[in-house]
Amino acid sequence: MNIIDSLNWRYATKKFDSSKKLSDEQINTLKQAFNLTATSFGLQPIKLIVISNKELKEKLVPLCYYQEQVAQASHVLAICIEKSTTTADINAYFDLEKEIRGTKEEIISKFRAQLIEMYKNKSEEEIQQSAVFQTYIVLGNLLTVCAVEKIDSCPMEGFIPEKVDELLKLKEKNLKSVLLLPVGFRAEDDVTNGLKKVRKPLNKTIIEIK
Amino acid sequence: MNIIDSLNWRYATKKFDSSKKLSDEQINTLKQAFNLTATSFGLQPIKLIVISNKELKEKLVPLCYYQEQVAQASHVLAICIEKSTTTADINAYFDLEKEIRGTKEEIISKFRAQLIEMYKNKSEEEIQQSAVFQTYIVLGNLLTVCAVEKIDSCPMEGFIPEKVDELLKLKEKNLKSVLLLPVGFRAEDDVTNGLKKVRKPLNKTIIEIK
Repeated sequence: MNIIDSLNWRYATKKFDSSKKLSDEQINTLKQAFNLTATSFGLQPIKLIVISNKELKEKLVPLCYYQEQVAQASHVLAICIEKSTTTADINAYFDLEKEIRGTKEEIISKFRAQLIEMYKNKSEEEIQQSAVFQTYIVLGNLLTVCAVEKIDSCPMEGFIPEKVDELLKLKEKNLKSVLLLPVGFRAEDDVTNGLKKVRKPLNKTIIEIK
Repeated sequence: MNIIDSLNWRYATKKFDSSKKLSDEQINTLKQAFNLTATSFGLQPIKLIVISNKELKEKLVPLCYYQEQVAQASHVLAICIEKSTTTADINAYFDLEKEIRGTKEEIISKFRAQLIEMYKNKSEEEIQQSAVFQTYIVLGNLLTVCAVEKIDSCPMEGFIPEKVDELLKLKEKNLKSVLLLPVGFRAEDDVTNGLKKVRKPLNKTIIEIK
């Protein structure tokens, strides 16, 4: 199946088969894919919560305006931001680069100072906003990786973040939930399975300048 | 190559080989992948500008803080938002659904009215903010599709949007540029090619709740 066939196979699954579970290998692929997502300056101000606990998934339902998928799905991925990006976080990134690549400090030091300065000049709101953008890159990446791996998924912006944060004890971890992605297997009787995709024609969404 | 190998192959290309051009088939894959990106309520408040014009690519360089990739790359993709999502846009979506799926009006009408009401209550800023989120889903999708298709790319937030909008005459089209994605082929002498990826260990970016 080529990549366009995979993207056509994908749809926002409205009903999952709760009897089917993703394998450890499949979950491992999603974790690795999450961690390989491109982020602004490589800083990764994001975290992924992987929820398979049955009671917790059921408690999510009312917090997601009664979208049952979060209880039915094999796993629910909560894509979160870190509330702050501190000088220590930026230094940790460059220390990791030195460790992994053996890059010398003199190569790094100027850019390190610039980046620290740039983040010092940002408000907490701006830093969180930028981190939120990265969660949407994650979503785009994971939706496509799921499609390639024949894992069903349903992207969700519609939930009460404060309540989800409380349930998942995110405040204590300095995190905020931004997006939810239930993943698993479509139910055979999902009425939205097999519906044709509704998309504008290419000549309405793309402009070429040759 | 499995999907994780593909994601590891990908990197933010710092130097493209300007002698190599993407084929029409490759560009067509990227266009289709763009159009298949999931968007909030399926409304697609986004447009893709596909630039292969040499002079235009060169004019982009100073607007991108002299990142030469926009001139070297085979094509530059500008991911844009529509400045507004009107009642007419929402009606057009449901009309398209009826046309493509043969859905009956009585199935659609309640949700149509809810969605129109929801968007009427949003400020222009909120509507644009939501559209901006969708451009990052596009970016996440296209970076992964490029990786699968062995197309090199470099995601860019760093440019002067107002100047890019002026150059591409986006104001007249009611569009705003949000992200740029030069695509093509890495230069053999790109010094960043082959560097190990800098990523936090999985146990620092992922929390499992079993």
